[in-house]
Amino acid sequence: MLIVKKFGGSSVANRERIFNVARRCIEDYKAGHDVVVVLSAMGDTTDDLIDMARSINEHPPKREMDMLLSVGEQMSVAYMGMAMDALGVPAVSLNAFQVQMHTNSSYGAAKLKRIDTERIRNELEMHKIVIVTGFQGVNKFDDVTTLGRGGSDTTAVALAACLHADSCEIYTDVDGVYTADPRIVPNARKLSEISYSEMLEMATLGAKVLHNRSVEMANKYGVRLVVRSSLNTNEGTVVKEAARMEKMIVSGVASDKDVARISVMGVENEPGIAFKVFNSLAKKKINVDIILQSVGRDGTKDIAFTVARGDVEAAIDVIREDMKIFTAKGYEVEEGVAKVSVIGAGMTSHPGVAAKMFEALSGGGINIKMISTSEIRITVVVDEADADRAVRRIHDAFDLGD
Amino acid sequence: MLIVKKFGGSSVANRERIFNVARRCIEDYKAGHDVVVVLSAMGDTTDDLIDMARSINEHPPKREMDMLLSVGEQMSVAYMGMAMDALGVPAVSLNAFQVQMHTNSSYGAAKLKRIDTERIRNELEMHKIVIVTGFQGVNKFDDVTTLGRGGSDTTAVALAACLHADSCEIYTDVDGVYTADPRIVPNARKLSEISYSEMLEMATLGAKVLHNRSVEMANKYGVRLVVRSSLNTNEGTVVKEAARMEKMIVSGVASDKDVARISVMGVENEPGIAFKVFNSLAKKKINVDIILQSVGRDGTKDIAFTVARGDVEAAIDVIREDMKIFTAKGYEVEEGVAKVSVIGAGMTSHPGVAAKMFEALSGGGINIKMISTSEIRITVVVDEADADRAVRRIHDAFDLGD
Repeated sequence: MLIVKKFGGSSVANRERIFNVARRCIEDYKAGHDVVVVLSAMGDTTDDLIDMARSINEHPPKREMDMLLSVGEQMSVAYMGMAMDALGVPAVSLNAFQVQMHTNSSYGAAKLKRIDTERIRNELEMHKIVIVTGFQGVNKFDDVTTLGRGGSDTTAVALAACLHADSCEIYTDVDGVYTADPRIVPNARKLSEISYSEMLEMATLGAKVLHNRSVEMANKYGVRLVVRSSLNTNEGTVVKEAARMEKMIVSGVASDKDVARISVMGVENEPGIAFKVFNSLAKKKINVDIILQSVGRDGTKDIAFTVARGDVEAAIDVIREDMKIFTAKGYEVEEGVAKVSVIGAGMTSHPGVAAKMFEALSGGGINIKMISTSEIRITVVVDEADADRAVRRIHDAFDLGD
Repeated sequence: MLIVKKFGGSSVANRERIFNVARRCIEDYKAGHDVVVVLSAMGDTTDDLIDMARSINEHPPKREMDMLLSVGEQMSVAYMGMAMDALGVPAVSLNAFQVQMHTNSSYGAAKLKRIDTERIRNELEMHKIVIVTGFQGVNKFDDVTTLGRGGSDTTAVALAACLHADSCEIYTDVDGVYTADPRIVPNARKLSEISYSEMLEMATLGAKVLHNRSVEMANKYGVRLVVRSSLNTNEGTVVKEAARMEKMIVSGVASDKDVARISVMGVENEPGIAFKVFNSLAKKKINVDIILQSVGRDGTKDIAFTVARGDVEAAIDVIREDMKIFTAKGYEVEEGVAKVSVIGAGMTSHPGVAAKMFEALSGGGINIKMISTSEIRITVVVDEADADRAVRRIHDAFDLGD
């Protein structure tokens, strides 16, 4: 088997943890597998580099920033190569140049275009463990790029896809994907399997186990993902095509508290007005989530939507500026709200999921402010203060716990 | 003009010094010159990386060590790029991959083979300051190498040679090359010019301003070297072909206290014995310096030579092992000795230099233990306790001071 294993920054934060990771990789190697390891920068390395950079230049050129930040992963892979050598196993570290991990030139948020696999395959043939820098690439000018958010996960999945790996294991500080956040729902249960699309909804909706970018890529190329803990040898959760062993209707409950609701009120009931609002917001790269439109008695409309709290200020600027174009009479902002969602591929064929969810909420006296649905997800917006309780009630109602 | 400027690790050790270097480079840039800057790793970065590496693996694989250490210079050049941007000047940082700084595969002590200049020339044409990582290269496998001792100086001189630079400025913490170490000889005078061969003797003999490796390369390719201070704007010392303005006989006095004398005694007076001794030492990579051979009354020979103190133990191992082959009756080690040398291209045409030197020493009651001469150098071995006084007496005798 060829296994790609990815470890995050906290898993390689010091000497002991580096050896811990080295031993995990060597187990697979000694079992006869080809092993490719993808590493992030150690612990606080990246933050330290950013702090120094900002002390020199408040807005450092993005190209130079990527040149700087890429050293973090290079340190991790070199140390890992030394640790494996100390344990008597041949290993070789490779950076993005050496692999030739081609990206476009969006410094700080580059997209992978192509990965050359020849060097990695040659090293594997020489029976070495191959240790690759996550998060980074190289563009057509031979300049260093970084992939931005979820970068190392993406590197691992992309490598697994190009190498046709049998499995891509993402190591985190949790055992796998749970039916809900165990900190909120103590009896949350670890899922043995989840489909790509469910995982995507979970990722997008606040379960911070995997970045949706890596899940999307895994889905596209059919990479078998395994989410497991770097602290123990528990089985973890397999993310793969829909085919599931356990026929559960709902696979999990997720909540997201980084939400604000904005309402634009008294808009004339004409076609195209909503388009104008959302077009103006999109131009400022403000991501709008749940949208609700209602017509009042005077014939005007209220348009409400949710945004991440960090985007509230920019959104309000847009609305104030274009108030006349929107024919709006006013706007309202509510920051203390949260999204709570049930996710499950099974719900498409099982009516009554929404009813059961709303019953659980109303039974707890929790008021629903907005509702949004997709084929495998039902999301409600509630008061932030009610969010954790809502998650627990829904989790109980669908009998997801141990 | 095209100017290559090299700054060492202490010159870029913190934010303030980075900006200081940036401003020095920008002065030349604004005067209309093309500027290429070569940087070492910041302050203690390299030591910190080595410490961590050794904590993981007492004998880290050299390839991984180079992969690790090369991040130090990459951080320096990225920070410098940000500082220049903050000062409003276009700059670009390049590592050894981006330049394509080709070396052989001797990890930790790689030799430069070829430097591609296309990328640098393109960036200069776009009117940017080009900031290049010193000390590092890339081999034919695309693996990172480091150049070892004096690496960044060598990078700078090699770049100056390939780019046909008008000048290669090496910035240090002293004003230039002095007639003697100013800490030993308070009235030592800064030389405005020195020839390559004199500089080579000075470098080899303990004036730690320039590494002889970079001086040799400058000599070979006719690169005009300037040694100057990063702390002030004084003129510095120009190292170039022999043609000199001031016709001095002696240009400087150097001392080296990292010396031990080893004597192998009672060796049979047959041809080839000395060869056997030095051949055995060479095989263990022990560098032998001054050699003295004397024939005693009983017809046997004593062979004495100097080595660096760090090599004493290894040298004794060789001698003990091959005692019979050497036909030796015993050996002696004296660690408390030092080399004192006068250097000067002028002395070839001026007899009496040696006499004047010996007179200065004997006038001070300083005993000479060994003597060695070349065309532009006379070296004596004296007691270490006499070394500084010897330097001052010789400096005075040749009237080198201010």
